[in-house]
This record gives sequence, structure tokens and C-alpha cells, in this order.
Amino acid sequence: MVAQQARDRLAASGHGVLATVHPVRGVDAVPVVYAVDPAGVVGIPVDLVKAKTTTRLQRERNLEADPRATLLIEHWDASDWSRLWWVRAELRRIEGTDAALEERLAGLLSQRFGQYADRPFAGLLLLRIVAVRGWTAEG
Amino acid sequence: MVAQQARDRLAASGHGVLATVHPVRGVDAVPVVYAVDPAGVVGIPVDLVKAKTTTRLQRERNLEADPRATLLIEHWDASDWSRLWWVRAELRRIEGTDAALEERLAGLLSQRFGQYADRPFAGLLLLRIVAVRGWTAEG
Repeated sequence: MVAQQARDRLAASGHGVLATVHPVRGVDAVPVVYAVDPAGVVGIPVDLVKAKTTTRLQRERNLEADPRATLLIEHWDASDWSRLWWVRAELRRIEGTDAALEERLAGLLSQRFGQYADRPFAGLLLLRIVAVRGWTAEG
Repeated sequence: MVAQQARDRLAASGHGVLATVHPVRGVDAVPVVYAVDPAGVVGIPVDLVKAKTTTRLQRERNLEADPRATLLIEHWDASDWSRLWWVRAELRRIEGTDAALEERLAGLLSQRFGQYADRPFAGLLLLRIVAVRGWTAEG
């Protein structure tokens, strides 16, 4: 898969698995929804309901201690493995805040997912894409 | 989700995302198929075709340098988030070989996936389950 096709699929999907560095377990993995800004930034919402029930999410703690992360999206088809593909993005947490960027990404998320129409976000994790790799079973 | 239900779903699924510790990127993530032995060991096949085209898979190199891994399985439903669930298993690579265990897991894989009926494996990665956690949107 060429790089542009991998980036296009990453932007189109909106759902994947975020892996971060965990101080004890080595790695952590959790399903996420996300949006991609044309500037090459992934925004992952921190839901209000989760922010209320936990002081801070493990993924946030992991990313503050180590800014490296990986986002994997894939197409799975149990019966036809010739159609499988995946895209993996290497990410780095962006420190500080960027209100304009957060606003753009929140807008993309609210358009993409009906569940997010009212933007029930406590905030967004912002991660810069530093590399994207794609794979297809068809080669 | 109670622990037994999480373990049952892990054994039933057979497809997930394996995250390992990468020396440079921090974390690596790749889709895998797997089987679970009743003794609490996950077997992940190394396909013959991949073993021929690369000297060794990155996941193997990662696990030899750091035996910690995480396997995430999930149910995704874009339209109905009340049905979402995931199960995450914390794993440790088993050093050395265990022919009987590999045989059992290869048998499970060949039964579970028609594509593996002829056992086209160069080998199996063996990982012991050290913890399992499950989550459901329904709470």
C-alpha cells in the first residue's frame, strides 16, 4: 500500500486501537475513535462521562510519561483473508494546547459520529503523525 | 464484565491486535489470529510465507528483547455504541519450546480457521496469560 493510500484510509476510518507505553505492563492497548486533521494531527476524544468517573485515563497518564503511541486500523474478514489490510500510524503526543486545532478536530468528530453531535468531550488528546505504514494481503 | 466472561470471549474470538514493546517506536501493534489453550497460553502462528520473506518478524524480535505483550479483542459497532465491548489480555512470552503445547495450539488453529487446515506454520509464538480485563459499554 502506498503512503498516500494508507493516510487516506487512516483519515476515513475513525476507529482503531491505540497502543501506548505502560510503565509496568510495557504496553497498553485500547479501542478509540478519532479524527485526523489535514495538518497531520490525530484527535482522540476524552469522553465527559469517563472524565467524570476517573481522575484521569490511563492513556493520558501513559502519554505524559512517554509521548510515543501507535494507532492501528484494520479490515478483518474471517472468511476471505485475501481482502485483509491494516494501516499503522506512529504518533507523538503534542504538549500544551491548541484551541483552533482542538476545535477543528472536535468538529470533524461531531460530523463523523452521530453520538458526538453534541460534542460530549472533556477534551481531546492531540497526537502528531510521524509515520504511516500500510499493508494489504494482496501485496 | 466478570473475569470468566472475559476469558471466554478471548478464547472464542481468535482475532485481535497484539501490542509489543518496540525499542525505538515504544510500542508496536499488529493484527493477529490466535488460539487459547485451556492451560492459559495464547498461541500466535508465524506463517510459513512470512517466515520465508523476512528473516524474523518484528513481533518476534520485540518479544525476545522484552517479553511483555498485550492482546486486545473488541466488538465494534459504529451505529450502536451501547453494544461495544473489549477484552484485554496481559501476556508474557514463554521462553524455550513445548512441543505438546504447540501441537495442541496448532490443532486448535487448524480447526478454527479453514485457512489453517493444513497448518502452514513456521512456528508458534507462545505467550502466557497473566491477567485479563474486560469492559462493556453497558457496564
